[in-house]
Amino acid sequence: MGALAIHPVVGLPEVRPGDVLAALITAACGHEGGPGLADGDVVVVTQKVVSKAECRVVDLDPGDAASRRRLVESEAVRVLRRRGELLITETAHGFVCANAGVDLSNVARGRAALLPLDADRSARRIRDGLRARAGVEAGVVVSDTFGRPWRRGAVDVALGCAGVAALVDLRGCADALGRTLEVTEVALADELAAAAELVMGKAAGVPVAVIRGVDPAWLREASVRAELVRPPAEDLFR
Amino acid sequence: MGALAIHPVVGLPEVRPGDVLAALITAACGHEGGPGLADGDVVVVTQKVVSKAECRVVDLDPGDAASRRRLVESEAVRVLRRRGELLITETAHGFVCANAGVDLSNVARGRAALLPLDADRSARRIRDGLRARAGVEAGVVVSDTFGRPWRRGAVDVALGCAGVAALVDLRGCADALGRTLEVTEVALADELAAAAELVMGKAAGVPVAVIRGVDPAWLREASVRAELVRPPAEDLFR
Repeated sequence: MGALAIHPVVGLPEVRPGDVLAALITAACGHEGGPGLADGDVVVVTQKVVSKAECRVVDLDPGDAASRRRLVESEAVRVLRRRGELLITETAHGFVCANAGVDLSNVARGRAALLPLDADRSARRIRDGLRARAGVEAGVVVSDTFGRPWRRGAVDVALGCAGVAALVDLRGCADALGRTLEVTEVALADELAAAAELVMGKAAGVPVAVIRGVDPAWLREASVRAELVRPPAEDLFR
Repeated sequence: MGALAIHPVVGLPEVRPGDVLAALITAACGHEGGPGLADGDVVVVTQKVVSKAECRVVDLDPGDAASRRRLVESEAVRVLRRRGELLITETAHGFVCANAGVDLSNVARGRAALLPLDADRSARRIRDGLRARAGVEAGVVVSDTFGRPWRRGAVDVALGCAGVAALVDLRGCADALGRTLEVTEVALADELAAAAELVMGKAAGVPVAVIRGVDPAWLREASVRAELVRPPAEDLFR
């Protein structure tokens, strides 16, 4: 396998409700100095612009802690832990994250972004749009920034995907010495999301990246919810 | 910020106890078709070859479950969860991972690799060696493959680092709309490890990758243990 390139996509306008993200991405990739789009690319799109395009931004007075807590609780199906204003929650999608994904950064003051209702569907819609508008067969990952237990700092993970595997199953593969592998399932979509974050920067406002050079075997129908969300019954920490 | 390139480093020999990894990496990067090494590169090295070079590989009969459990327990300071043969453990370094990092893949049959005693020090040693041998000022991340709760599949994370930040603190930064950011600390070294895994492949036996084009502001003295390991007192899941 050769080198991988990760290109930030700059020049997207502020996304408004109803915007067609595939059109904005196609235009921005085609700007002078942009990476363009090619078959086999994986386009990573942050949740924030997806939520804006899909009208998942609501009013919220940032000083009103009670309203904020009610909003978080309405987006959560379960609260796993609570410390002060921080709630570690399970969402209806099965994601475990802080405050049910309700996020006040990178939205207008007095507004809060909620997670997309179905980020796999969001990714499919962008993928289909890139096929129609740019004529390319690309994978798409919708990413968000989650904390985790045991380790400080947040990393970007996948909320949804289309046209690129969420999980790569290596069971039955041999390692370089011919032994069966111990770690057999790699969360590919999460690694793609984390890699894309390296060129985005939380403060820089780059909501899209193009990853070029991925293994063609990874490009297939897939779903984060079906492949990456661990059912509570097989989870040791719920 | 421009594009990032992630190069697999192929052609490393099977690593033996006492090998100088910086010498092997410098040679492999310089092979025809190799990426070379340049100031500002981040070199990601998998734990397995670090453990081999540092004599952290021990005898273990793969069929002897009792010996294996004793070995895991001797590497762990605490067992958080237990299910069948799987133990979720805290190691002396403060890492929470499966089976205290004891791993039978990609080592000879009848052997098991343990985690490096101090992977930050391992990273510094490689960084110093690259400076001396290749004349470059590079960052180094020592990576390993960890599972996580709530999400299926493993991702690569950082066990140690040198010359590149483990955690990037954005507190006080404004987002693209001038609001204070909600997520303020990014686990940079973990994202670099995850990105590098994309060109390594568990089965392909590529233990090193070179990431070129990172933000120069990230290149500083750092430590995974000091920055990324979350003290139990601030952890909601221990």
